[in-house]
Amino acid sequence: MTTPARRGTLVLVPNTLEFGTDTTGPLDDALPTGVIRRAAAIDHWVVENAKSARAFIKRVAQLVALAMPLQSMTIRELPRPGKGPGAGPDDASFAALLQPALAGHDIGLLSEAGLPAVADPGATLVTQAHAMGLAVEPLPGASALLLALAASGLNGQQFAFVGYLPVKDEPRAARIRELEALSQRHAQTQIAIETPYRNRALLVALLEHLAPVTRLSVACALGWPGGWCRTQRVAQWRGAPPALSDRLPAVFLFQAA
Amino acid sequence: MTTPARRGTLVLVPNTLEFGTDTTGPLDDALPTGVIRRAAAIDHWVVENAKSARAFIKRVAQLVALAMPLQSMTIRELPRPGKGPGAGPDDASFAALLQPALAGHDIGLLSEAGLPAVADPGATLVTQAHAMGLAVEPLPGASALLLALAASGLNGQQFAFVGYLPVKDEPRAARIRELEALSQRHAQTQIAIETPYRNRALLVALLEHLAPVTRLSVACALGWPGGWCRTQRVAQWRGAPPALSDRLPAVFLFQAA
Repeated sequence: MTTPARRGTLVLVPNTLEFGTDTTGPLDDALPTGVIRRAAAIDHWVVENAKSARAFIKRVAQLVALAMPLQSMTIRELPRPGKGPGAGPDDASFAALLQPALAGHDIGLLSEAGLPAVADPGATLVTQAHAMGLAVEPLPGASALLLALAASGLNGQQFAFVGYLPVKDEPRAARIRELEALSQRHAQTQIAIETPYRNRALLVALLEHLAPVTRLSVACALGWPGGWCRTQRVAQWRGAPPALSDRLPAVFLFQAA
Repeated sequence: MTTPARRGTLVLVPNTLEFGTDTTGPLDDALPTGVIRRAAAIDHWVVENAKSARAFIKRVAQLVALAMPLQSMTIRELPRPGKGPGAGPDDASFAALLQPALAGHDIGLLSEAGLPAVADPGATLVTQAHAMGLAVEPLPGASALLLALAASGLNGQQFAFVGYLPVKDEPRAARIRELEALSQRHAQTQIAIETPYRNRALLVALLEHLAPVTRLSVACALGWPGGWCRTQRVAQWRGAPPALSDRLPAVFLFQAA
């Protein structure tokens, strides 16, 4: 009789919030040493982007010796979601990514920034891990969404992350008014994001369609050098709208009066 | 003519997720060295609880020399919310807590666990800081809510934190059904918390009132030694409910099928 191998854990590894900048400092500015040590011991990865994952692992190696040389590690990318119903990757392809855990290897799941599976790909892999009875361990790391919420001063006891708003004017205006009504009814902070090059268009729409007394918070590049956040009533913002980059991520939060 | 003093920043300092445990390891297991260094330089604090804040600062001092001895620091507690309309602390009392920033001191805001102002007191102080035109800087730290969400495998693109559910049976059952309907309509993950000694009662109510096919995730003491999380359909949980401590924090998340 052989003893069954210890099964590996799916380890959710937080990334820093900045990505694609040239000004990246040491990794322990943004991540706990405990997380960096844990990441250094992982040799099987499933990642959003293999190139940025290798850059992350190199930053880990600057602080803690890796368990295995980078080029010997197994680094696989998450399958891209398909377009249209039934066109996406099936459960079997996610199960295949988790096979090394059945042989006892911990598997690291890594996004390009922040926490995996939150406003980011990865949730389907986590679901598959639970279905296979694997342990899932999230390591402590920051999310730009919750940093923005904390820094906004808006209600942190009731909030909703609503992702991206519609791109076209009319549906976007309707959605903004719908979310503002929800915010008023439940004292619920609404949190939205946008592709950076549309940040200005979303801000213009928010300033046009939200009520003057609604409090609007804009958080730009939190966790990056020069990141900032500011909360004011819509009427105040209208007088002096902020300069928003079309290359930096922003989070938009509002709470109706 | 004198140059106006540089104004201080309201710095949101994350805490670890465990509190009140005897098994606390070094602080850099859970917090970035950059955050610990920044905290060591702060000598004015506004905190949820002065005793636990001093314990936190002592843990900082084990890793980085403090700018000032602990006993010389200014540590003030957030005013407690009042009961009934108009009974709470007024804007002036929050403005008074921020006065040192006008003289150039950075002020650290610290909760007993996790991020300040998220499912925790502090948002009113942050609002007052924005009203006074102070910069607000959230340092990167983890939130138990988002670690639980990441680890659940439930939808991380649309989610709502709904805080505490009603304690009494009938309103709680109604609220659970209302949230499940919202989850179904918007593919929105619902995230709730409970006072630890009521964890079991909430779990029983969720298993009774949610649909058998709804996916329910239970995350217990994430970020603590021995923390765990597990996601299954309600029908599966009913067959073998988890053992929940009445002393450890738990997060409950669900998504309708």
